[in-house]
Amino acid sequence: MSERDEELTGKLPHPEEDFSTWYTQVIRRAQLADYTPVRGSMAIRPYGYALWENMQALLDRRIKATGHVNAYFPLLVPESLLQKEAEHVAGFAPQVAWVTEAGTEKLEERYAIRPTSEAIIGALYSKWIDSWRDLPVLINQWANVIRWEKVTRPFLRTAEFLWQEGHTVHRTEEEAEEETLRMLGVYQDFIENELAIPVIPGRKTESEKFAGALRTYSVEALMRDGRALQAGTSHNLGQHFARVFDITFQDQDGERKYVWQTSWGVSTRLIGALIMAHGDASGLIFPPNVAPIQIVIVPIWRKDEDRQPVLEATDQVLARLRPPYRIEADTDDTKTPGWKYNEHEMRGVPLRMEIGPRDVQNRSVVLVRRLDRRKETVPIAQLAARVPALLREVQQEIFDRALRCRAENTHPVETWDEFRRVMEEQRGFIIALWCGDAACETAIQHETTATIRCLPLDRPCEVTGPCIRCGGEAKEQAVFAKAY
Amino acid sequence: MSERDEELTGKLPHPEEDFSTWYTQVIRRAQLADYTPVRGSMAIRPYGYALWENMQALLDRRIKATGHVNAYFPLLVPESLLQKEAEHVAGFAPQVAWVTEAGTEKLEERYAIRPTSEAIIGALYSKWIDSWRDLPVLINQWANVIRWEKVTRPFLRTAEFLWQEGHTVHRTEEEAEEETLRMLGVYQDFIENELAIPVIPGRKTESEKFAGALRTYSVEALMRDGRALQAGTSHNLGQHFARVFDITFQDQDGERKYVWQTSWGVSTRLIGALIMAHGDASGLIFPPNVAPIQIVIVPIWRKDEDRQPVLEATDQVLARLRPPYRIEADTDDTKTPGWKYNEHEMRGVPLRMEIGPRDVQNRSVVLVRRLDRRKETVPIAQLAARVPALLREVQQEIFDRALRCRAENTHPVETWDEFRRVMEEQRGFIIALWCGDAACETAIQHETTATIRCLPLDRPCEVTGPCIRCGGEAKEQAVFAKAY
Repeated sequence: MSERDEELTGKLPHPEEDFSTWYTQVIRRAQLADYTPVRGSMAIRPYGYALWENMQALLDRRIKATGHVNAYFPLLVPESLLQKEAEHVAGFAPQVAWVTEAGTEKLEERYAIRPTSEAIIGALYSKWIDSWRDLPVLINQWANVIRWEKVTRPFLRTAEFLWQEGHTVHRTEEEAEEETLRMLGVYQDFIENELAIPVIPGRKTESEKFAGALRTYSVEALMRDGRALQAGTSHNLGQHFARVFDITFQDQDGERKYVWQTSWGVSTRLIGALIMAHGDASGLIFPPNVAPIQIVIVPIWRKDEDRQPVLEATDQVLARLRPPYRIEADTDDTKTPGWKYNEHEMRGVPLRMEIGPRDVQNRSVVLVRRLDRRKETVPIAQLAARVPALLREVQQEIFDRALRCRAENTHPVETWDEFRRVMEEQRGFIIALWCGDAACETAIQHETTATIRCLPLDRPCEVTGPCIRCGGEAKEQAVFAKAY
Repeated sequence: MSERDEELTGKLPHPEEDFSTWYTQVIRRAQLADYTPVRGSMAIRPYGYALWENMQALLDRRIKATGHVNAYFPLLVPESLLQKEAEHVAGFAPQVAWVTEAGTEKLEERYAIRPTSEAIIGALYSKWIDSWRDLPVLINQWANVIRWEKVTRPFLRTAEFLWQEGHTVHRTEEEAEEETLRMLGVYQDFIENELAIPVIPGRKTESEKFAGALRTYSVEALMRDGRALQAGTSHNLGQHFARVFDITFQDQDGERKYVWQTSWGVSTRLIGALIMAHGDASGLIFPPNVAPIQIVIVPIWRKDEDRQPVLEATDQVLARLRPPYRIEADTDDTKTPGWKYNEHEMRGVPLRMEIGPRDVQNRSVVLVRRLDRRKETVPIAQLAARVPALLREVQQEIFDRALRCRAENTHPVETWDEFRRVMEEQRGFIIALWCGDAACETAIQHETTATIRCLPLDRPCEVTGPCIRCGGEAKEQAVFAKAY
């Protein structure tokens, strides 16, 4: 990333004309994040970080409600540890940042900055787990990780990012699979009900699974430009890491056995998803459940004598709508109401409250929804009842709009010609049959740049018929898309 | 740190006989943290991390209540940036871990893993701040940092640690000094009222101040072995970083001026302070405000027919004392009540609730304080009223005990002979006069290993008389101690 301050003046590009520029500009204009002198790393500014804190709190509550506890493991991973699991290191080695010196001393062994923590956690689980009584281990970590990506974009793909990574250990394969799917469900619940983004839960193909996993599941979301975004992943690790890190337990039958493990994570990438799933030509649209500011009050007056009563009414409203409401009044005298409307719409604030002299007389306010600018007048005395209901309505409307957008851009396709045409002209999700052969998967990607996002857990139809690409007998129903 | 599992069997050493071994053993036995294969880095286990989460929540609330917002800056700092402030880099260079390679590529410029974030944040503030209207900037960051220490101890001194670092920017020197002292006050309030550790707020001497600061303040605590621990620091950075990172603003008078900055931080070191300020021969003692578990229920029965009624009463109590109480029932059938008493005392749980057959008959429970094992019988019907009061009492008693311990170990000293004798035989804080000369400070450290912890803000007496070491005219009253 480099400095591009000139892009912040003038009109925000229309997302339907240049989605990519719209995306990076709206991030910088809304002060969600900024470029830094560190290659591929961004600074998450207070407005963006407040969003992340709200997301963290809502997800952390779900992670704890399903019996997990948080812990913290080292940032650095000795090279010898990382190399123990062959597939794992092959998957991550090209992206690892290496610490080779400390002070003036050259280190005997290189340390990787964690690209993910299976290796270092595996080494500790091998010490901590001894008996079936120690199981299950249900630990989550909130942390930063580094993956040295060649091409980066704020939130979507950055060298450093913030995430949570769950690492659990179980007695049996069944329990591990149950946990893997439980956490996929937690992600779906969190992303749909808090971020208002509908997702498709499904299994990844062999070629797309996590390096070292037995099976990878993901939740896949559709952005407003028709591209897909992997919003979270949950891995059944089988016994791969147990064998290389020697994580065993004495079972009730007295036998020593290898454990079964899972890992699962979502990251600050979800902020990218939030921006691209909901935003429009005026800027960001944040769902109330995670919006850093849910309601912004814009006091309005022309004549000097109106200033005082309007500001008094503003204070009365603030006194009625205290935390946990996230509400602010924009009382900056140097800006016009019109400028403020644009600014707070651009920043995605879900509700605007206008208070002018006439509202003061009527003891009411005007509430305007960011999503569609619908207005309603609410008596100040009824705000405490109306505002929570309105926030819930807006939350639902934002989800419904995203669901409609996905429905309009989901195409069941039965012929290869149609597949190519849809991917060229419309993008979106394609639902099609697939023979299960990796060669076909690669050919499709090669010819259309679309990949199999997942093999959906809920199949809308029977899997009978020919593979969309080779015509052979289909084994799977797959969701295809061009992806971020 | 290396593996030393043998130390975990047998009796916990008495802290008065071997405080250092007691410290590391109690950490591992209580599963607060464990050694890892990464030199000088520990894993913070769920019980220790829950403590940190409670501390974070209570401090974060105070940081936000004083107008600050959180943000996140890159982990890596380009070498050229770190080197801009000469004193700063000289202070941190020996402890910096360097990233020199990524994937298979050697980097053109080395990156430091942040030992602290003044440099990277300074580079961004220089972009973000333009006018007096942008000030003050009041940003805090919760993050991990690395300082490659030669000798490490869990929580007290580790290569990687977790902390918060505030970085604020102001128009005037006065505002910066006010902020520096305000945050020192926030730390004192947090540490005394939540961690129950009394602290002395004061200014650091020139030789002990932060590399690059104008003035450093700290809060200093006394551990039960008579050693001091710096519990938090707050720096007035003056314009040092503003000048090297070119952080300027256009003031109301139209002139472009350098900003004034502060930074302040506390870290997971505070967990070490908590252990060493309160623990005893039975193990940890946690104040209720931050204890991961505030109350542990131990159900007691001998005859099989008593099991069911006792467990039912346990459930009734759990139903009455729901979250935010942090309460657990230890219903493990394979352990005796006596074993559980020892275990939960060792883990520092402030209140134990015993429920036996007779308690069930009387519809009451027995509550036992960890601090002094005082017991009281409380009717189940009165628990909801008694428990919060009892938790407050215990919180206060733990603080009072630490305050007594500090009073008993604080020595006003007027002669050099007495200074040496106290430091040899008793340790603790010594209050003495000092001429203000760094040569005297060094000589004292050389001869006694005691250092000036701070020049206290509240001076118990007038500064008139001779310097404790050289006999010259005193300029300061200083608090001396051997320190962690």
